[in-house]
Amino acid sequence: MNVIGELLGYIAGICIAVCFLPQTIQTIRSKNVAGLSLCSYVIYSIGILCWMLYGIYLHSFQMILFNAISLFFGVIILYMIIKHKK
Amino acid sequence: MNVIGELLGYIAGICIAVCFLPQTIQTIRSKNVAGLSLCSYVIYSIGILCWMLYGIYLHSFQMILFNAISLFFGVIILYMIIKHKK
Repeated sequence: MNVIGELLGYIAGICIAVCFLPQTIQTIRSKNVAGLSLCSYVIYSIGILCWMLYGIYLHSFQMILFNAISLFFGVIILYMIIKHKK
Repeated sequence: MNVIGELLGYIAGICIAVCFLPQTIQTIRSKNVAGLSLCSYVIYSIGILCWMLYGIYLHSFQMILFNAISLFFGVIILYMIIKHKK
């Protein structure tokens, strides 16, 4: 379980880290934010920040690193929504 | 740190659990999925599923419960994107 467990943490972390990269690219390119929920991305960013801090508490390298990357994309999407929302 | 750490896990968990509730409601109501990235929500759902399994490995009740709720909303948004994408 040790190896599988650690591996799961890496797969999850990589997915969560890069999942909003396509959304970020699409939003920057199209500037179409009509379908995006500002509220969702505010809560998401706060949640990811806390997950990252919780990762420090759990001594989980995966949670700290990958949530930091995820937070980066979350904040960019958030910025795009605020900038382009009508 | 014990109480703060556990509390952080709960705040993060609740945020991640409910963050895509507004997005889910907005998408169901408007059926506007043009701005949403299918790729992002596929990766997101896989990531959250692995986070949940990683939570079992870490014996983290917060990670298991809240990621399960988050996965639920992620899958609904995914379904809406596939159904309404032109």
